[in-house]
Formats: sequence, structure tokens, C-alpha cells
Amino acid sequence: MVTSSVPEQQVLTPAAVFDWLDEAAELRARAGLTRTLRSRPAEDPVLDLANNDYLGLVHHPAVTRAAADAVMRWGGGSTGSRLVTGTTELHTELERELAEFCGFEAALVFSSGYAANLAALTALTDPDTLIVSDAYNHASLIDGCRLSRSDVHRAPHSDPAAVAEALATRTHRRALVVSDTVFSVDGNAAPLAGLASAARAHGAALLLDDAHGFGVLGPGGTGAPAAAGLSGQPDVVATVTLSKSLGSQGGAVLGPRRVIRHLTETARTFIFDTGLAPAAVGAALGALRLLRAEPQRADRAREVARTLADRLTAAGLRASTPDAAVVSVRAPGPEAAVQWAADCRTAGLAVGCFRPPSVPDGISRLRLTARGDLTDDQISQAVEIVRAMEPVEE
Amino acid sequence: MVTSSVPEQQVLTPAAVFDWLDEAAELRARAGLTRTLRSRPAEDPVLDLANNDYLGLVHHPAVTRAAADAVMRWGGGSTGSRLVTGTTELHTELERELAEFCGFEAALVFSSGYAANLAALTALTDPDTLIVSDAYNHASLIDGCRLSRSDVHRAPHSDPAAVAEALATRTHRRALVVSDTVFSVDGNAAPLAGLASAARAHGAALLLDDAHGFGVLGPGGTGAPAAAGLSGQPDVVATVTLSKSLGSQGGAVLGPRRVIRHLTETARTFIFDTGLAPAAVGAALGALRLLRAEPQRADRAREVARTLADRLTAAGLRASTPDAAVVSVRAPGPEAAVQWAADCRTAGLAVGCFRPPSVPDGISRLRLTARGDLTDDQISQAVEIVRAMEPVEE
Ligand SMILES: Cc1ncc(COP(=O)(O)O)c(C=O)c1O
Ligand SMILES: Cc1ncc(COP(=O)(O)O)c(C=O)c1O
Repeated sequence: MVTSSVPEQQVLTPAAVFDWLDEAAELRARAGLTRTLRSRPAEDPVLDLANNDYLGLVHHPAVTRAAADAVMRWGGGSTGSRLVTGTTELHTELERELAEFCGFEAALVFSSGYAANLAALTALTDPDTLIVSDAYNHASLIDGCRLSRSDVHRAPHSDPAAVAEALATRTHRRALVVSDTVFSVDGNAAPLAGLASAARAHGAALLLDDAHGFGVLGPGGTGAPAAAGLSGQPDVVATVTLSKSLGSQGGAVLGPRRVIRHLTETARTFIFDTGLAPAAVGAALGALRLLRAEPQRADRAREVARTLADRLTAAGLRASTPDAAVVSVRAPGPEAAVQWAADCRTAGLAVGCFRPPSVPDGISRLRLTARGDLTDDQISQAVEIVRAMEPVEE
Repeated sequence: MVTSSVPEQQVLTPAAVFDWLDEAAELRARAGLTRTLRSRPAEDPVLDLANNDYLGLVHHPAVTRAAADAVMRWGGGSTGSRLVTGTTELHTELERELAEFCGFEAALVFSSGYAANLAALTALTDPDTLIVSDAYNHASLIDGCRLSRSDVHRAPHSDPAAVAEALATRTHRRALVVSDTVFSVDGNAAPLAGLASAARAHGAALLLDDAHGFGVLGPGGTGAPAAAGLSGQPDVVATVTLSKSLGSQGGAVLGPRRVIRHLTETARTFIFDTGLAPAAVGAALGALRLLRAEPQRADRAREVARTLADRLTAAGLRASTPDAAVVSVRAPGPEAAVQWAADCRTAGLAVGCFRPPSVPDGISRLRLTARGDLTDDQISQAVEIVRAMEPVEE
């Protein structure tokens, strides 16, 4: 007989096992933090500046036709792990073209950008590695740090000197500096040159998550590492998503050939995950080829961002100075941000709404995607709607 | 000035930062554990029993057409987090139909089965939870355990008494029992009734990963939880992948409405990941509707598995007794397994090859998928090829 250390009366009935989830929901509701799913129709009249379709390619025929063709030729799914049956010639083509476009030796495609980040952080570190991670890094990088077997130092946001100090005083043989290239909430760029020289001065590798730079920054949208002269360097690894500028789904790690081989053979989210579906591979390839043929699409996204930010500022709003294709507008507080976003939607404009605890700096804001396909009329429309929000004082 | 605790001479040059990866590759090569990617052509003459396309639906027009239609209507990607712009009406339809089909109150779709497992394990546990996890569980469940903030007890494989003892002697307020329903390497089923009664006797929740049961087990392929009378129970949560029986990509969590709400509002791999691409949602819906209309497809997969196993056994091979649609054949050792798999491929048959360290029990084996669309001729062909392998004594 096993004696129970949980007193008899505490054994929950099946119906009560998840009661604690309702209590948690109640706490969230009281804090005004309830989140709900809203499903959108195919023909949505709203002007959508809440999505991450930076180049406005998600419905472009070059993308949708490539996706549909891939499905008809390769099937609905990839059928298995990339290492067993899940690698089609289409995956290999995408990897080759991605690497070449971004200026890296090799690339490896994953089922999501999230999975790519988990892979890079776990496979490129070991218990004798110190990871130095920017305090505002994306959730997938943070989860990658937690899954790794390494010590993690959380460095102050965008502070190469603090990174250098953490590297210099480490007791670990190896180190990996990890940062978003463009931070998703505010759209600000990381100090890549400073991070790279800090890493180099201390023999550390550099991992850059270019989710919000790829397709927008660098010559023809080749990304923030290319813009900073870091692509193709032997100590630099980048991750990208296929789900934002390329209007598809999936992610990739880009880097030296030896890094890609190591990930192929050891990364758990590569080995034990089904390969990316052919449709998503096809859509990403279609978008990539379009961008290569029409590199001005990247410039246009940056231009739209600057115009949008300038005009919002001129209208008296506290808009960010955009480093890529994201413009944020500070709100007086969390309730105002929620109210503003709701008012925008009523007026026909979808914008992102960020507030604590999803903003690392505690500042509530609206987030607008400066899609490269926006017309001047649409920009004007967006500015008119946002400027009509009541300018509450903080 | 910061003083360095890494001696000057140890600071690596950029070119040397990843040298250790080559050393690791060298060690793997010496242990015979090198893995390489093989990309397959669209028209592959090989009989593919290495994939996870259990119902043979990946090229079925009901699946590919639904995927292509979804792309044309909804675009190449879902454009954002499910909570922002990434939920289309198609996602909601799939969630409703999946829940209904499997007999659960509600469902939530993720970009992969891997992400669904990470979500369930992290969101349904807390520091006062003991997770009791089967020793042979899938990598994604193990990673979910590591990402959780809970203590994890690794229970011996398929041992409800050991699970009950771990639950009984815990000091934690809450507990979660987690198991694959069908273990992917050998295709054996978990003792679901025993696990459920152990969990219930001790007020624990039960999380079942039905990746290899869904579409194959239960009435019409409704899954292992349905077969065990556990679907829809207030203390049971299941995860499924859309990437195996449904011939698509993605995953889902199924459970009580309160569980799905909790995941929607708190699971990091839901909130911070782009929604599943419309093509994959469409393919999964197409497959699900086909399976609902033709429930005999699930029976046929099980029948193929039994036939295949019986005939391999009759041919003198050590085939498993299949509980679902996977048949494994024991090899004398790791080298023989690799050789057998290579010989099969030369003869026109693709089979999976599992050996240490990817097999939890240390036994090397071939793994054959008993696809429901195999003809009797194809089954004969497969048996003929496998029986021709040299029956080396261990
Ligand atoms: C900075 C950053 N990295 C990674 C991801 C994850 O990429 P994916 O959504 O393709 O999984 C996202 C957003 O989703 C992101 O914003
Ligand atoms: C048991 C099990 N769970 C989860 C997964 C992950 O699912 P997916 O490949 O759809 O991410 C797999 C296989 O890939 C699996 O075999």
C-alpha cells in the first residue's frame, strides 16, 4: 500500500480538476487582461494595419499561385520529419535561394519561426555556454534560452556595453549573444554593429532574429544582417520567419554550413517535427522570387513607414521614428490604448494594441504595420482615423 | 575597465567560434550517427512506408483541392498571431469540426503538433504541479515538460501502477499525467484505462498525445481517447497533429472549454506564433470531412497493419503486433537496421530505420507505416522486399 501525502479530502473530483483555470480567468478579467479570438471573414472591409504582411504579398498571385501549384504537385503535407520523408526538392530549392538572397552559406527551413529560434538556441549552446540575451527579446528566443542547458544573462535593452561586460566577466568557455534585429512591439532596430564588436572582442557567436527585418531592411530586403555587413560572417547566425514579409508560414536558420549541418543533425525541433507543408514552401519561394525581381518593394515599405510616422507626428501624436516597417503610437495608458484600438476598428482601421504585460517597458501603444502595398490614400485614411482619437493627457 | 576572466589567448577568432561543431560532427561520424537530408522528387517510384500518411490522403483531391481553394481565398499565410489577425473563419470551422469529430467540447489549432504539446504542458501546469510523464514520450512532450515550471517525474514505460504511486506520494497540490496514446517508434498503445483510473484516484489531470491514434483508432478514426471512452471527460485533454492522418500540417489541443480558453489566453506558443497557414487549415478540413464521410478508411489502416504484421511474422521476421497503423520489425543490431533499410530502398521500398539513441529501449528496428490506401499487391511487394533481408542472428 502506498500512503498518500495528499490528504484524502483534497483529492479532486474529475469535474474539479481544472477549476483553477477558471480562477485564473477571473483574475485576468479583473485585471482587464481577458483575450478573445476574433475570426475574420475572407472579404474584410477593414484596412488592416495590425498584421505582419510587411510587403503586402499575402494575396499576391505570385504567392498564392505558387502555393496552390505546390499543393497540387507535392500534396497537402510533407508527410514526415525532414530527416525521413519530409524533405522535398522544393524545400531544398527554398533553402538554397534563401541562403543566397540573404548572403549566408546555407539555410535550414522549419515549420515556424518559433521552432527555428528554439533550434538555434538549443543546438548552438551547451552547459559551458553563457547566453547573453537582450531584455526585450521575442518570446520564442526566451523559450529557446529556457530550453537550452546554458546559463542565461538578461542584458539591458540595446546596450552593447552591458553585453561586452557580461561576456568579459563570464566563466564559461563559450558564449552566444542573441537579439532581435527589429523589436516587434516598438519597431526599433538593435545596435547590430555594437553587438557584433562586443561578441567578437570576446570570442562569442552572434544570433540575430531577423523576423521583422527580413524583406524590409538591407539592399532589396535582404535583411538587417546584410544591412550591417554581418551576413555570411563565420560567427553570425540569423533566423527569419516566412510568415511576415513573405506572406507564408515557417521559419529558417541561416548561417555557416557547419552550423546548418549541426542543426540538421541535432536540433530537436527539426528532427522531431513534421517538415513545413509544401504549400507554405511554395508561397515563400513565390514571394522571395518576386522580391528578388522587384527589390523596390522593400524600399517602399520603409518609405510608407516614414510617411506614416511623419504624418502621425504632425497630427500631434507620439509616433515612433521607424527603423523598419513598424510604427508605434504611444497611448496615455492601457485603457486608452484598448479604447483607441476599438475606436479605430469602428472607423474601419485595424491596428495592434500592446499594453502590459506584453510590453517590456510598460508603455501602452498602438502598433501600425506600414505595409509596402499601401496607397497614399490609404495612408491618409489611416492617419485621419488615428488622429481623431482623443488626445488624453497622461 | 572590465577585467576578463577568460584568458586573453582563449578569445576565439570569428572563424574559430564554431569549430566545436565540427568536433561534435566528428564524434557523431565515429559513432555512426551521421544524419543527412535526402530530398525527394515529386514523382518518386519508391513505395513509401516511411512516412506518417496513415490514411494515404496527402495527395487525395479532397485534400489538395481544399488546400488550393483555401490559399486562393484566404492568402498564402494567416498574417499574424491567432489573437491579432491570424484567425480566419476557416480556423474556427476547423476547430469546431475537430472538437465535434473527436468528441471534445472545444479545440484550438496551432502551427504544429509540437507547438500544441508545448502549449498544453506549459499552460496547464504551475510550480505546484507534478507532471508524471511516460519514459518513452515524444520529444515535444519532453520539451514541454522542460519548459514548464513544474517538477517532472519520469514514469517507467506503460506502467499505470508506477504512475499511481508517483501521484500518491506527491507533495504537489496539482498533478498532470502525460502520455502518447500510441508510441511512435514501436506503434504500441498506452494503457489508457489504467492511466485514467490512476489519474482519477489522485485528482490528477490526464494529457494524451494522440498524434498516432487520431484518424486510425476509435470509431471512424475519432482517436484513442474516444476509443477508451475518455473524450469529452472534464479532466482529459488530448493533442493531435494535422500532419499525419490528415495529410496536412499543424496541431490541435482538444479539451473542456475552460482548458481551451486558458490556452488561448496564456499559452506562449499560441500567443507569440503566427497562426497556421490557410492552406494547411483547408487541407486538414478536407481530410476530416472525407474521413467523416468514409469512416471505413480508419478500419482499413488497422486492417492493413494486421495483415502486414501477420505476413512479416509468417516470413520469419520479428514484427510487432500492431495497435494502430505502425508495424515495427526488430533488427539484430544498429548496423543491420541501417543496412536493411538501405537494401529495402534499393529494392524500391522506403521504410523508417530507428536505432539508439532515438529508440528509448535500445532496440534497433525498421518501422513500416501501414497506410490505409495500400493495395494487397503493394502489401505483398513490401513483405517480399523485407523478407529478402538477411535474417542475421543477434
Ligand atoms: C521577433 C520574432 N521572432 C519569431 C517569431 C515567430 O515566428 P513565427 O510566427 O513564424 O513562428 C515572431 C512572431 O511571430 C517574432 O515577432
Ligand atoms: C507523438 C508525436 N507527438 C507530436 C509530434 C509533433 O507533431 P508535428 O510534427 O505535427 O509538429 C509528433 C511527430 O512529429 C509525434 O510523433
